[in-house]
Amino acid sequence: MKFYTFTENNLRRFTENVFLTMGCPEVDAKLAADVLLRSDLRGIDSHGVARLSGYVRLWEKKRINATPMVKVVHETATTATVDGDGGLGLVVAPFAMKIAIEKAKTYGSGWVAVKNSNHFGIAGYHALMAVEQDMIGISMTNASPLVAPTYANERLLGTNPMCYAFPAGKYPPVVVDMATAAAANGKLEIAQRANQPIPEGWVQDKEGQTSINPHQLKEGGSLLPLGSDKDHGSHKGYGLGATVDILSAVLSGANYGPWVPPFVAFLEPPTDPVGEGIGHFFGAMRVDGFRPAQDFKDHLDNWITRFKSAKTIDPEKKVIIPGEPEYAFENERKKNGIPLIDAVVNDLNELALKLGIAGLS
Amino acid sequence: MKFYTFTENNLRRFTENVFLTMGCPEVDAKLAADVLLRSDLRGIDSHGVARLSGYVRLWEKKRINATPMVKVVHETATTATVDGDGGLGLVVAPFAMKIAIEKAKTYGSGWVAVKNSNHFGIAGYHALMAVEQDMIGISMTNASPLVAPTYANERLLGTNPMCYAFPAGKYPPVVVDMATAAAANGKLEIAQRANQPIPEGWVQDKEGQTSINPHQLKEGGSLLPLGSDKDHGSHKGYGLGATVDILSAVLSGANYGPWVPPFVAFLEPPTDPVGEGIGHFFGAMRVDGFRPAQDFKDHLDNWITRFKSAKTIDPEKKVIIPGEPEYAFENERKKNGIPLIDAVVNDLNELALKLGIAGLS
Repeated sequence: MKFYTFTENNLRRFTENVFLTMGCPEVDAKLAADVLLRSDLRGIDSHGVARLSGYVRLWEKKRINATPMVKVVHETATTATVDGDGGLGLVVAPFAMKIAIEKAKTYGSGWVAVKNSNHFGIAGYHALMAVEQDMIGISMTNASPLVAPTYANERLLGTNPMCYAFPAGKYPPVVVDMATAAAANGKLEIAQRANQPIPEGWVQDKEGQTSINPHQLKEGGSLLPLGSDKDHGSHKGYGLGATVDILSAVLSGANYGPWVPPFVAFLEPPTDPVGEGIGHFFGAMRVDGFRPAQDFKDHLDNWITRFKSAKTIDPEKKVIIPGEPEYAFENERKKNGIPLIDAVVNDLNELALKLGIAGLS
Repeated sequence: MKFYTFTENNLRRFTENVFLTMGCPEVDAKLAADVLLRSDLRGIDSHGVARLSGYVRLWEKKRINATPMVKVVHETATTATVDGDGGLGLVVAPFAMKIAIEKAKTYGSGWVAVKNSNHFGIAGYHALMAVEQDMIGISMTNASPLVAPTYANERLLGTNPMCYAFPAGKYPPVVVDMATAAAANGKLEIAQRANQPIPEGWVQDKEGQTSINPHQLKEGGSLLPLGSDKDHGSHKGYGLGATVDILSAVLSGANYGPWVPPFVAFLEPPTDPVGEGIGHFFGAMRVDGFRPAQDFKDHLDNWITRFKSAKTIDPEKKVIIPGEPEYAFENERKKNGIPLIDAVVNDLNELALKLGIAGLS
């Protein structure tokens, strides 16, 4: 495994070019590229440009619409449902979050459910849009079924991430951005590539027995909810995954549970959909809707200072503030560039060849 | 261990009488009793009348105000902060949730943070108030520090429960009501009484080592976040507990983290508070703010039907819909009465003696 490092601008230009070649309007291409780049910058390599060729394959199969008419289809003062018209989630999600933010500016809070969308990148990107306005940002999405609820031997939920982001004062924002499964699929893929055993409690095999073999997921097994087993609270991870599914899809009119269409082009969507596309849910609340923003930030700073200075078991391992490692990555990679593994570089250059655009350099 | 069974009305009268004797206004005494009874009816015995004598002890120490002036101290169209004036959380929380519901009636959604409150009973009670109005209900609270964040050897968070409740059609509401720790304190207390080992991953001892001894929590140990250890996602449970703490207390002006006052009268509150009392956070969103309510309910029914009929590992263990067991308990106990263990009955009768009121019969 070899790494090649690219500047942010270089990768951004390439990514915009891919989306433009798909036929996305320029403003959408720039936005979609920004979402992917932010993921790579923040060290979440699984959700960045490594996914580009997957988006293109879905577009080739007409499962992603490059020129969607994204619109509000239902609305009150502080709630709305958006129809993404099959567009890139990378474009539809910021559209929806902007509506939530605008509503919050006027009424204190705004909440937007989305149907007929696709993979939206990292949840944190959208939640952080609210943080920039001194709001609390909330962002979640359902996803292709991979997770078996407690007691089930069937994939009924996606890794359904939820994100809560809060503006701090002197510190970077607190960003809780987490899959509701015990381990995200990306972690499993690393173990699969390395052919390494995984901890018990991440995966069950096709008989429903816990397994340390990372390949079992591809052989009919399932991911397990956060908590791993009933004794350790897997019903809570399942409950959180269900909450994300209901808010994102039952509320918006998207597909839910096992009907969520797969993110990969080689698997066909269910032939009996219960809704349209995949679903997201976004929220924005003005901090000063509850107390003066500076008071909130001062106290969140105090919270962070206290947790950072906690007594730890191992003096080498400090308590981590949610969002802190991603913030450090972002600063470092903005300066020193974004490393991509050779497999991703090759994949992107093949994609460039196919689309007839300039490869990475 | 022996059980005595009481009718709902019998226990309700007794409980109201205790609150009246504390000096609560009649409407508050009835409301507080209703919250506790609902917990016992729903089978959550740890949060029902078993807690009565604890509330009285806090009131005796002037840490609960029986006649609070609960009021809104900050407000926008859809957000508010409530000052509970040191009242019973059992009274303050429904006050706040009612405001959230009223705002949602007018604007689609309503969000209320609460400071200067106390233990609010089961989170589900408050969230279900919204469900009765065809709204999605959200309810959470911070709590006395018992949980060590990932890598910490210090109790910095409470078991900080969060609850999401959704109205269904032909089925009972979906109610995800969960502590963000791997195991709630109540489960530990059962193991302590029985002197039984607990699963690894619930508790760490005072050195920060995982322990199967249920008594370690009382000997300087900590509860562990949902996920139990880093490999199994304890940083996610910690992130959720942090989210509850920030929304409930940093946003409202209550105490947070290690400054949250203890629920038990024999432990003194910190002498350097960073806010007032403990904090809660509530939300209500009109379902028909997103799509017609009947559409939502039909699809949630379909979701429930699909999950209930999931293929399971053990044919004896079906997939459980969140809130389903509590609903079954409620029906059964409304009919057949509420069983209390002898220790609780004795405790309540001693309380009656102390307060000079009629005991349980």
